[in-house]
Amino acid sequence: MQKITVTGLRAVPPFALGLVRDLRVRWALEEAGFAYDSDMVAVGEERDQPAYRARQPFGMVPAFEVDGLTLFESGAIVHRIAEESEALMPADRDGRSHVLAWMFAALNTVEPQCQALLAVDFQGAGEDWARQRRPAVIEVLNARLAVLADRLQGREYLLDRFTAADVLMTTVLRFLRHTDLVAGFPAVDAYLKRCEARPAFQRALAAQAADYAREAVAA
Amino acid sequence: MQKITVTGLRAVPPFALGLVRDLRVRWALEEAGFAYDSDMVAVGEERDQPAYRARQPFGMVPAFEVDGLTLFESGAIVHRIAEESEALMPADRDGRSHVLAWMFAALNTVEPQCQALLAVDFQGAGEDWARQRRPAVIEVLNARLAVLADRLQGREYLLDRFTAADVLMTTVLRFLRHTDLVAGFPAVDAYLKRCEARPAFQRALAAQAADYAREAVAA
Repeated sequence: MQKITVTGLRAVPPFALGLVRDLRVRWALEEAGFAYDSDMVAVGEERDQPAYRARQPFGMVPAFEVDGLTLFESGAIVHRIAEESEALMPADRDGRSHVLAWMFAALNTVEPQCQALLAVDFQGAGEDWARQRRPAVIEVLNARLAVLADRLQGREYLLDRFTAADVLMTTVLRFLRHTDLVAGFPAVDAYLKRCEARPAFQRALAAQAADYAREAVAA
Repeated sequence: MQKITVTGLRAVPPFALGLVRDLRVRWALEEAGFAYDSDMVAVGEERDQPAYRARQPFGMVPAFEVDGLTLFESGAIVHRIAEESEALMPADRDGRSHVLAWMFAALNTVEPQCQALLAVDFQGAGEDWARQRRPAVIEVLNARLAVLADRLQGREYLLDRFTAADVLMTTVLRFLRHTDLVAGFPAVDAYLKRCEARPAFQRALAAQAADYAREAVAA
């Protein structure tokens, strides 16, 4: 991979610091050892312009460019990076399928439930519907976390080594950081801390924070 | 691909007929022209047993077996099939990345919003929280559908030809069939009908229904 650009948000509210999805891409790049440039887009103006929508049809982040290819969806971007680096995905075909299975598990089976809780706890803060809805959302989330706890019994990572699936699952589980749900499953809690302790994760987090700081000064 | 087995549910309530996710896998296999066996699992008993959880950790469907590989997550399974057939994915690397981007868009950007509406309209039927919550869910869904409508302006499929991404997006949009939301976006409505009219989709749907009928007779 030659010239790489990752697009994140120019500014975020405090509750979203370290949660925005360009972090996934930065982390994957750090694990793979690929240098990149970042390019921050403003919420609500630039994001709705045709120029940005041509890169990211839904007006979200991240967007990604590499060697003339423009790509969106954090899962697809992380997979593309993983194809280039055995630090993120083994070379054998079945091994790659297993990594992709756990990548989809993170984004299609676990993340939607986390998003449902974020809707309840942030969008719905203080609202009646959120109070009524919360127990059912928590119940499903606990069921998902119990599966992860089983999976992580005796394993350091989702598969037999660190992979791109851990990049996605970790950043998904971070959406629960305003709760004590993960702490209720010691194997998951230890896994999350193990992944977050990786130097590549820490570099990615610092780089994202540095971009917010730079944008704040420029504004 | 030699010996293929797709696992679906043994029985479903009427509202879920033609919506369960083994349909995605059956459809992909039909497009690719790969024969398969089906194997139906019971809700709530077999699904919680260790033998099934070893194949599908979350106890969901589909599960998939091919040539000794066991795989879960419909997105990953459809991708594995697509790797074997240009009917579902072009051979060039950037083309494959674009297909995967739209596969993740279907399962991570559109499906969670559809699931949020199913929770409101089925789980929450007649409940106060669902009445209060529904407008916000509809608003987000309409925003997603508007992006798809833009994308499909002048295009028959999400990319410049039918791909695995259309298999996933179509089966996701079908989760909205109890509403008139898709009808509000003629380009999306026409796309959905175009995809559902494909002979491979019709064969997959019929095969899933035939399995339900066979299981009902056997019960």
